[in-house]
Amino acid sequence: MALIVQKYGGTSVGSPERIKNVAKRVAKFQAQGHQVIVVVSAMSGETNRLIALTKEVAANPDPRELDVVVSTGEQVTIGLLCMALKDIGQKAKSYTGGQVRILTDSSHTKARILNIDEAPIRRDLNEGNVVVVAGFQGVDEHGNITTLGRGGSDTTGVALAAALKADECQIYTDVDGVYTTDPRIVPEARKLDTITFEEMLEMASLGSKVLQIRSVEFAGKYKVKLRVLSSFQEEGEGTLITVEEDSNMEQPVISGIAFNRDEAKVTVLGVPDKPGIAYQILGPVADANVDVDMIIQNVSHDGTTDFSFTVSRGDLDKAVGILEGVKAHIGARAVESDKTAAKVSVVGVGMRSHPGVASKMFRTLAEEGINIQMISTSEIKISVVIEEKYLELAVRVLHKAFGLDAA
Amino acid sequence: MALIVQKYGGTSVGSPERIKNVAKRVAKFQAQGHQVIVVVSAMSGETNRLIALTKEVAANPDPRELDVVVSTGEQVTIGLLCMALKDIGQKAKSYTGGQVRILTDSSHTKARILNIDEAPIRRDLNEGNVVVVAGFQGVDEHGNITTLGRGGSDTTGVALAAALKADECQIYTDVDGVYTTDPRIVPEARKLDTITFEEMLEMASLGSKVLQIRSVEFAGKYKVKLRVLSSFQEEGEGTLITVEEDSNMEQPVISGIAFNRDEAKVTVLGVPDKPGIAYQILGPVADANVDVDMIIQNVSHDGTTDFSFTVSRGDLDKAVGILEGVKAHIGARAVESDKTAAKVSVVGVGMRSHPGVASKMFRTLAEEGINIQMISTSEIKISVVIEEKYLELAVRVLHKAFGLDAA
Repeated sequence: MALIVQKYGGTSVGSPERIKNVAKRVAKFQAQGHQVIVVVSAMSGETNRLIALTKEVAANPDPRELDVVVSTGEQVTIGLLCMALKDIGQKAKSYTGGQVRILTDSSHTKARILNIDEAPIRRDLNEGNVVVVAGFQGVDEHGNITTLGRGGSDTTGVALAAALKADECQIYTDVDGVYTTDPRIVPEARKLDTITFEEMLEMASLGSKVLQIRSVEFAGKYKVKLRVLSSFQEEGEGTLITVEEDSNMEQPVISGIAFNRDEAKVTVLGVPDKPGIAYQILGPVADANVDVDMIIQNVSHDGTTDFSFTVSRGDLDKAVGILEGVKAHIGARAVESDKTAAKVSVVGVGMRSHPGVASKMFRTLAEEGINIQMISTSEIKISVVIEEKYLELAVRVLHKAFGLDAA
Repeated sequence: MALIVQKYGGTSVGSPERIKNVAKRVAKFQAQGHQVIVVVSAMSGETNRLIALTKEVAANPDPRELDVVVSTGEQVTIGLLCMALKDIGQKAKSYTGGQVRILTDSSHTKARILNIDEAPIRRDLNEGNVVVVAGFQGVDEHGNITTLGRGGSDTTGVALAAALKADECQIYTDVDGVYTTDPRIVPEARKLDTITFEEMLEMASLGSKVLQIRSVEFAGKYKVKLRVLSSFQEEGEGTLITVEEDSNMEQPVISGIAFNRDEAKVTVLGVPDKPGIAYQILGPVADANVDVDMIIQNVSHDGTTDFSFTVSRGDLDKAVGILEGVKAHIGARAVESDKTAAKVSVVGVGMRSHPGVASKMFRTLAEEGINIQMISTSEIKISVVIEEKYLELAVRVLHKAFGLDAA
């Protein structure tokens, strides 16, 4: 008998019919002798509907009251799922975040979980109940309703799994696992049976949006076994996200090819190479809430250097405007920008012990005549910025070169 | 400075625009130096939408989970109203039933309020907040969400007014008060400045549906000053529902004329006049969940009697079918029914001290050639059943005869 936490997202519970399907799936699991805790999101579209309502009554909706309104979305789902379970003869009990209780700090709309009271859930499970918990929400020490921010239901699932020492936390979504790359670009892409947390973080932040990054970090920290599965398929093992690479197994060097089309490149030319220059350039950009991704500073030449970074395309004009304003102050020669950039990354914990990944990547791209504009590396990832028009080609050839194509 | 509880029903908060209007009204009250607790219902249509959802996932929605789902309707409204108040510069704080807490028994979907914790509300009021409480809901001793049943928001308002010893509980609705009769039938109908609780109970149960009967009983019991007002009019004192008749004032004998068109008459002819016969006739009818209104048993004649009662028209066929089935067993000669009945009542605490109300009523109807089919009386009410086609005429002539027409 295992204790399993299952999380179903908004699409999986998007209609009464789908909620009934989830109930059947959960009841089947329970019938196999497992104990099941289910975490659910609001029905798809519901959170947006509620937010739209708040904007109609207030120009700047108060965060405390926003949480009161928005948290009703998940509350409706837990009630519906429990009555669907009872309707097919499965004992079940619902909990709002406040009822569990999932104690958070008081940062409304982006609260952090501090503690979970596992006793009442444990008692209900032992009495044969499926326990259904509202994702995305909690309560602060004063009894105020809080929410964890978008995607917070994944975090609720992982946090419950950690608190109750569950054997596994299963995230049900509309894909059947994590793939070596996007199958829409590379039809030969393979579903991974396992991926490490570190790789998953790199894949997720690079655009393979299957799991909330925060929940992956959380699962890594508390060593929760996390599995991504499809809620629309009866069979399949999904992808298991493991705490560490299994040294007993033949580890592939590269686990996947990630990419991001939404990149724009900014280069500040001829800046004096002196301490503090990076801060002088990026400080004002960060102050304007522009997220900077890759940052490259070339070696000095005649006392000046070129400084490049990438931002999302929507932020490009803002970033360039800011830099034009400080250009004279920092003594730069010019500010250049490019909206046609794209980023491709090879990710894999195996590259730690296998040298030559970078050179293989660069050679593969060179053979196709693809020019590399920027390079950035980490322990388990190599990213390059290239012209956007070569993106699909680059992903395909790298996927093949690193032996990821399905047999 | 007064402490006022204001309750706004579903129509009054039926759209973002209307919620903003309620916010303005409440803020104005607060600006006059009063302390205000607001109780709100779900936006009109929302409760029905949620109930429809539950019926799509379960044939027999579990009552505990039904309360979890349905209580979100009021939770959305409290959040929206508070953010609308803050948006116009008025401090405000929302409370769900569980947050107050409004302690109830565990009878899901029809819970009774046991206790209200007034301390947190008192503290918020003293800090200058408008306190907004979700109507219709509470929490049992185990932390389960409960609801009070339809119309329960009025009860929440009265219960809060009682717990906090408020100066007045104002029920805002879509009419501007309680009238001597329905103005659609008698254009001369007057709004009453005051009415006693007992009269209100008779008026409400007879079809003048302004207030939930249960909340009126509650207000009477705890001596809460209750006032019915329009949420769509800026001015007006509405109707005050008083605990007892004010003996210093010239009391009108009759306060209003109530009526009910949805009546059907059943007569069981020639039943043996022996103990237990009423139960033999009405027992099976009650077992079938048919609500019986008036019950008349005529004096015995040759050892048999005629037994008549009224039911709502939708229940008539069911009632007649049941009685045809037991007719032989109880020894009745025949069962007759009439779908064209209607009931008219004169209501007033003044009739206790003024004899002659009944004879005046009967004479007035006789002068118009209206035949009386059944008569039933209480301390403060006389009801008659007449042919439906005479209903409007009867209400008009009685309204005039008892001096209720506006000057």
